Amino acid sequence: MAVYTDISERELGAFLRDYEIGELTSYKGIAEGVENSNYLLHTTTGPYFLTLYEKRVRLDDLPFFLGLMRHLADKGVRCPVPIARGDGAVLGELAGRPAAIVSYLEGMWPRRPTAEHCRAVGAALAAMHLAGQDFSMRRPNALTVDGWRPLWEKARARADEVEPGLAAETEADLDHLEANWPAELPSGVIHADLFPDNVLFLAGEPGLIDFYFACTDFLAYDIAVCLNAWCFERDHSFNLTKGTQLLRGYASVRPISPAEADALPVLARGASVRFMLTRLYDWLNTPPGSLVVKKDPLEYLRRMRFHRQVRSAAEYGLSARETVG
Amino acid sequence: MAVYTDISERELGAFLRDYEIGELTSYKGIAEGVENSNYLLHTTTGPYFLTLYEKRVRLDDLPFFLGLMRHLADKGVRCPVPIARGDGAVLGELAGRPAAIVSYLEGMWPRRPTAEHCRAVGAALAAMHLAGQDFSMRRPNALTVDGWRPLWEKARARADEVEPGLAAETEADLDHLEANWPAELPSGVIHADLFPDNVLFLAGEPGLIDFYFACTDFLAYDIAVCLNAWCFERDHSFNLTKGTQLLRGYASVRPISPAEADALPVLARGASVRFMLTRLYDWLNTPPGSLVVKKDPLEYLRRMRFHRQVRSAAEYGLSARETVG
Repeated sequence: MAVYTDISERELGAFLRDYEIGELTSYKGIAEGVENSNYLLHTTTGPYFLTLYEKRVRLDDLPFFLGLMRHLADKGVRCPVPIARGDGAVLGELAGRPAAIVSYLEGMWPRRPTAEHCRAVGAALAAMHLAGQDFSMRRPNALTVDGWRPLWEKARARADEVEPGLAAETEADLDHLEANWPAELPSGVIHADLFPDNVLFLAGEPGLIDFYFACTDFLAYDIAVCLNAWCFERDHSFNLTKGTQLLRGYASVRPISPAEADALPVLARGASVRFMLTRLYDWLNTPPGSLVVKKDPLEYLRRMRFHRQVRSAAEYGLSARETVG
Repeated sequence: MAVYTDISERELGAFLRDYEIGELTSYKGIAEGVENSNYLLHTTTGPYFLTLYEKRVRLDDLPFFLGLMRHLADKGVRCPVPIARGDGAVLGELAGRPAAIVSYLEGMWPRRPTAEHCRAVGAALAAMHLAGQDFSMRRPNALTVDGWRPLWEKARARADEVEPGLAAETEADLDHLEANWPAELPSGVIHADLFPDNVLFLAGEPGLIDFYFACTDFLAYDIAVCLNAWCFERDHSFNLTKGTQLLRGYASVRPISPAEADALPVLARGASVRFMLTRLYDWLNTPPGSLVVKKDPLEYLRRMRFHRQVRSAAEYGLSARETVG
């Protein structure tokens, strides 16, 4: 939870004069989100969502993220839509930070996802992949296999402080992943961070938020992220029913190719390493007293160990009829 | 900023079934407030405000706070109104905490109050005092002169860690306050914590929130709290224009008696000690890494020093024509 930048009603009022969304009636800082400062605004025309981009977001990436939301919304994906200012721009500056207003997406993220949620999120992910196919901008994934080793180098020396043996396990996994990462698979825009708190359900319909890790990469890697994020229980066991539903939901909208199915174990293993690494880095580098809630890297070490044993996508619940040659 | 208790959409949905406020469409934890966990809800009938009462609030006091809001709203004070459940109760339980829903008050609190804000808040405070005169419940003020010494005893030993000399200054002030505190003045319901972040302005009209320090005490003590909270600049100087406007606004609605005017310097001095003491206690006792933002007790030491020099209410801006004999 975090609001890093407080804003005064006066500077917000001045900022809003460049928009045509009515008069501000209230704004509240939201105790969610880790990277940026978020406010829920009410105006005379309805609710809106204001984000102030903090240091960890690169200014150069913002047109990609905001353009993507606009593109996906135009294609019918339920996601926030950037609101254009009078001059047509979607990015402004507020309290010295880049800032944007998007439409407010109603819905609740599931604290305890069910198999039905998994099916729905699988289908929504596939629909997002299809809708993104003709998005013209590209953004390389800074947190795929090439990016893990540099991140690891910054954490390795202290990894065993967090869990004895973590350093050796991670080294071995990185060696394996670098040697076996797929060279080619269907690519496009992926969300890359579609955790339950980024999916708002309203009357059973999922809406997608927080596109600030979105990038261009293998579509199946996004499925692998979701298997990690949605299909493990609190005791760290993999829930095969949830995996089956997530994959079935996905394949009902976009068929999974045999090459993607074959790659799923290594992609899922890679995704578990990716989240372990960023959590480990934050764990070691977040000062005490910080506003950021540190997430436990060891949850993802447990997943790394699980994926190491997996021999085929069937173990995640993918049945033959969902793969199309 | 703080949300201490996370709630799931499922338990919130179950909780809301006892209310008649439509279907939940979203809820967000609010990064404001120190004592309790607050959520802004949207339902199909509009926005609402949900509070989960955390440990520092006594369960026995909640009927007073909620009853007061109901009473004041019925009398036309712009403040949140508790929403009754189907069974008529205004207090429920959610995630193991006492919880209540109140109407959502639109408006923005002024980060940099102007003299005009001070005038408006003075008038609103007086209107609240008048509206509270026939409120039947009573709650003693735990944080008036009798309560300061016990609080001070818990902080005294370490006070000079925060500012050398603080212990001796505070001792002398407490001695003076205990010897000179008024025995009798017009009493009634006071807000007792009417800081700028508890006043939401909408189109210039103030609305009052956060009644969780409200109690029965001298009405003029509430004025003294507001002089401390609204009329000092960031450089700790007293702004006579703001004081004049606050007192003029108050007296335009409820005349200030000569006895109240005479007591204002000692009451204002007492209020500065009260906020110094609770801030000092929190400063010394808040663990590092806590979600609570610690407020600087020394801001109120500066005010204590100012009030010590004051000889009459005229120095706060009270003119003779505002006191009625």
